[in-house]
Amino acid sequence: MFDKIAIIGLGLIGSSIAHAARRGKLAKEIAGHDASADVLERAGVVGFCDTLHADIGDAVEGGELVILCTPVGAYRTIAEQIQQHLEEGAILSDVGSVKGAVIRDVTPSVPLDVHFIPAHPIAGTEFSGPEAGFATLFDGRWTILTPVPNSDPAAVEKLKSFWQGLGSQVDVMDASHHDLVLAITSHLPHLIAYNIVGTARDLEEVTEGEVIKYSASGFRDFTRIASSDPTMWRDVFLNNRAAVLEVLSRFNDDLRVLQKAVEDGDGQVLFDTFTRGRAIRRAIIEIGQDTSAPNFGRNKS
Amino acid sequence: MFDKIAIIGLGLIGSSIAHAARRGKLAKEIAGHDASADVLERAGVVGFCDTLHADIGDAVEGGELVILCTPVGAYRTIAEQIQQHLEEGAILSDVGSVKGAVIRDVTPSVPLDVHFIPAHPIAGTEFSGPEAGFATLFDGRWTILTPVPNSDPAAVEKLKSFWQGLGSQVDVMDASHHDLVLAITSHLPHLIAYNIVGTARDLEEVTEGEVIKYSASGFRDFTRIASSDPTMWRDVFLNNRAAVLEVLSRFNDDLRVLQKAVEDGDGQVLFDTFTRGRAIRRAIIEIGQDTSAPNFGRNKS
Repeated sequence: MFDKIAIIGLGLIGSSIAHAARRGKLAKEIAGHDASADVLERAGVVGFCDTLHADIGDAVEGGELVILCTPVGAYRTIAEQIQQHLEEGAILSDVGSVKGAVIRDVTPSVPLDVHFIPAHPIAGTEFSGPEAGFATLFDGRWTILTPVPNSDPAAVEKLKSFWQGLGSQVDVMDASHHDLVLAITSHLPHLIAYNIVGTARDLEEVTEGEVIKYSASGFRDFTRIASSDPTMWRDVFLNNRAAVLEVLSRFNDDLRVLQKAVEDGDGQVLFDTFTRGRAIRRAIIEIGQDTSAPNFGRNKS
Repeated sequence: MFDKIAIIGLGLIGSSIAHAARRGKLAKEIAGHDASADVLERAGVVGFCDTLHADIGDAVEGGELVILCTPVGAYRTIAEQIQQHLEEGAILSDVGSVKGAVIRDVTPSVPLDVHFIPAHPIAGTEFSGPEAGFATLFDGRWTILTPVPNSDPAAVEKLKSFWQGLGSQVDVMDASHHDLVLAITSHLPHLIAYNIVGTARDLEEVTEGEVIKYSASGFRDFTRIASSDPTMWRDVFLNNRAAVLEVLSRFNDDLRVLQKAVEDGDGQVLFDTFTRGRAIRRAIIEIGQDTSAPNFGRNKS
């Protein structure tokens, strides 16, 4: 599909793209770059790239597809660094969890003859780094492309095929709608998970040891999400402020209703709210976005 | 260990106790009762009890150990119903997620020659009903006993051995401390999960279809917990009001700090908060209360 693709940032997503691109035979050469010498070396040990480059220009040079896989806070600088190295007709894309801010930061540095098509694979794990990636990460998940107004339809189609080749299903939508959808499906859940872990740890009356010991009663589920990469998530919240605050305000309104029901001992409100949770879970399982096994399947292992 | 145990309420926990007691050969006869004729019939089809009784007195009669496994809101009535049928020297216990309210509701009906020892196994899945149980549910998990002041130490030891025979580790603590510990490790996580699922569903700008489709970005984890049994959870919140409101208020305070950090674009506060999540997750995995596999192991399946 491509003679050369360049992956900038060799963490969980970057390395998984490389693994999956190899599996799908999507590129003759996979070039990799990371700003960290340590990460670059570890990526070499795992061996998912054909060439590794300490110089970002060398990695990008000649690439028909260049994918930014760093935390989004680094995009502006990277875009400036690679500007002169981007090939005519190349596709420049990314995997960031926010899209409006990415378009704002990257667009000024995109040469006119380069196709900038932002993308976001809705996939991941709580692990980070070049050892964390694997070829099946995107299988059956969704990737959202948010083309900019002047994106070339043929380039969008090609990027779509690439993500399908990585195992993903592909949707196309507007960047601002993406940012709102992800605010509720991803950003708010992470904020809440980080928050509850903090609350539990700081409670004076319950020791951290007790929280850890009895975590199987619900808490442990939140700790998985709350162990995601801090830099990546800091950048998400710094770059999707309006949408996050919007859904957070709805969440707070709803929580006040539940809080009042607990205060008033209003069993009917609690029961009705709790009843509505099952249908949405069932639908998620039906479309293959989660396992139907109890406790995510970890229980009987 | 026992000639006869009686299980009152044949849902996930009741049926799992029966399965595990059989596995451990802990009772010659396992008698079961459920108020629902339908559940009773389905329990018969699965076949985890030796005898099934539509009459609760028949189930309890002659039992050396009687365990209440219904939602806690039903305990008071059940305790009154079984009062005359409890054997001299029998142990009366339960599996409820709150303990102070259980002691309040059950104690008045406990005959003087019966040992009432409340218990709570910290184990479960998001599934309910007699088909949901399995023998390994308690393996490696913790069960908390909250003896009342006049509990007989020998009876406490016997109940402890029973739970160890079911595969569980056992701790003993005060009921009010139990209720605070569980408020943070279990009740608040469930309230938050139910709440975010409600917020997501009611958002006008994002369709339910989109929430479902892109749920793998975090949201789906919350839907598992939010599909737990509504009756059981209604009763938990009605019966652990003070502790739940206490930890909820801490949660809200902490969330306001994060909200302000998002509003102000304060990356340092966000980064520091997010960084602290990993240690607690690591500790939970180290003591065997969760899997170390990425995405709870569901990812590569």
